[in-house]
Amino acid sequence: MTTLRPALAADTRDVVLCECFARDGLQHEPGMMATQNKVSLIERFVDMGFVRVEATSYSNPKVIPQFSDASDLLKQLPRQPGVFYKATCANVRAVERAMADDVHGYGANEISLLVSATDTHSLKNLVRTRDEQWLNIANMVTAAQNKFRLIGTISMAFGCPFEGAVNPASVMADAEKFLRIGVRHITLADTTGTATPKSTSALFKQLQRAFPEACAIAHFHDTRGTGLVNYMAGFEAGVRYFDCAFGGVGGHPVKVKYGQGHTGNVCTEDLVDFFESMGVKTGIDRAQLLDVGQHCEDLLARELSSRVLRSGLNPLCPVTSPAHS
Amino acid sequence: MTTLRPALAADTRDVVLCECFARDGLQHEPGMMATQNKVSLIERFVDMGFVRVEATSYSNPKVIPQFSDASDLLKQLPRQPGVFYKATCANVRAVERAMADDVHGYGANEISLLVSATDTHSLKNLVRTRDEQWLNIANMVTAAQNKFRLIGTISMAFGCPFEGAVNPASVMADAEKFLRIGVRHITLADTTGTATPKSTSALFKQLQRAFPEACAIAHFHDTRGTGLVNYMAGFEAGVRYFDCAFGGVGGHPVKVKYGQGHTGNVCTEDLVDFFESMGVKTGIDRAQLLDVGQHCEDLLARELSSRVLRSGLNPLCPVTSPAHS
Repeated sequence: MTTLRPALAADTRDVVLCECFARDGLQHEPGMMATQNKVSLIERFVDMGFVRVEATSYSNPKVIPQFSDASDLLKQLPRQPGVFYKATCANVRAVERAMADDVHGYGANEISLLVSATDTHSLKNLVRTRDEQWLNIANMVTAAQNKFRLIGTISMAFGCPFEGAVNPASVMADAEKFLRIGVRHITLADTTGTATPKSTSALFKQLQRAFPEACAIAHFHDTRGTGLVNYMAGFEAGVRYFDCAFGGVGGHPVKVKYGQGHTGNVCTEDLVDFFESMGVKTGIDRAQLLDVGQHCEDLLARELSSRVLRSGLNPLCPVTSPAHS
Repeated sequence: MTTLRPALAADTRDVVLCECFARDGLQHEPGMMATQNKVSLIERFVDMGFVRVEATSYSNPKVIPQFSDASDLLKQLPRQPGVFYKATCANVRAVERAMADDVHGYGANEISLLVSATDTHSLKNLVRTRDEQWLNIANMVTAAQNKFRLIGTISMAFGCPFEGAVNPASVMADAEKFLRIGVRHITLADTTGTATPKSTSALFKQLQRAFPEACAIAHFHDTRGTGLVNYMAGFEAGVRYFDCAFGGVGGHPVKVKYGQGHTGNVCTEDLVDFFESMGVKTGIDRAQLLDVGQHCEDLLARELSSRVLRSGLNPLCPVTSPAHS
């Protein structure tokens, strides 16, 4: 921890990536990862330049044992100005745990709140209707007492495998609800990889036009290999915050005809290499990218879905050294 | 063969995809595929709507045994107006074999000619300098006697792992050479996946501005997962011809630090689903996409790299039935 470099000033990076391996990535892993391994990994994420890390979830340990170490994990993470550790919270009880940790000085400093764009997915994923979840979110925001940076995530914003197309006006109404209760960071999630560059661009432009005070975040899944092309469209539409996970792990399993489906997040190694090869500064130390990717594969003891880890960094990348070297 | 549908009229599709599984896909496969399996597969490609199929290579059977059945294979393929079977030719001897088959009425009707953008790659891949290869190409064009549609491919057009950046002016000069000897179809190849949307867009725009009489073709490899995002940039720059291969197989192996590298072509299943989900008509029958992809996996007896085959077609695709149903 003593070797950590100072976090980058905001203006040395063009985009802000959130590394989701430790939470979204691990949520559906059958094996438990030791807390110490998670801590070391998150230390490496921060050391290589990530200023946003999805660290854990204050979920019910009986339901998701992987995150039963939430408080213990957060206690061991290095604290640094400008570095945000996100914890997902499903209900008021979760927020109360985050508050308790915060009182002791080691809690998360970002909390994510989730709403589904469709009732069918809301019932399946959150076991609440949308109306019930909005009530739940309002109670969570009250319980959080302005102690955290709040991230409002609208899942299935680009379409739902159960209900099909989602009305953009409904997504905008959800965004407005978040803003009204003080949630300024709005994540539009392509939860099962049905978005296209067209729909990505259109929805983010609409969001930013309607709510210029919002900070737009893209959380896309690479279900159909469209992660990079949709993030490119988001970037061109003005989005600067993107979620990703090493090895493209994690995601939301939805049973489809052809097997369980590839459900992963957009792969960090491929995304960083992609942005940097265009001269878009990520603030991430490329020199550590493949080593950390390899470490993630070692931890999960299987080959993950990074292309760059197999093929090497783009040798024609114009940015050869990280901004903070 | 009697069940084949009539080929689509050109105006019922927005893009023309060339299916490269049978040649670029198989070239580096260690196992020999039976001619009958290749024939059945190519029949399925044509039946599902492909009007361009890279079928085989008139290469030296001692060097590449996989294509020792070139003439035998071509003899068995269904003939249909508007369907092009491409064969790669490395030298005058290859063109003479194509001519001999043509005299008998069963040859390829497209021949591809390859030049490398850099001398280092030219020597490694073609065992000739660029100058020597241009002389070779001139002799091949003469030998072809205007019998075939000629495809001029410039490999490493977007950069070379050996020589680094490639001067666009040199690529334009190569394109001009092709046009001067009567080769109107110009393929720019991202042979090892170093292109970006920026460089893709810039080079294709330059090509089309400088040579409006040329038909631009994109042949990209998905080495770093950038196939779809670069094809999107190409499409936006006006390119309408794209190469792909089922399962993303094939490609040009270049040894890199991290293993042999993922070298595959842009995956057909993912590309078709991607284009169609944006309403870009490919002319390919989506209903057959996953079955044929599964068949390709069965033939090679391993899991290939299609995401869509794992996850299913995009359920939000606006085009639910093929144009020629």
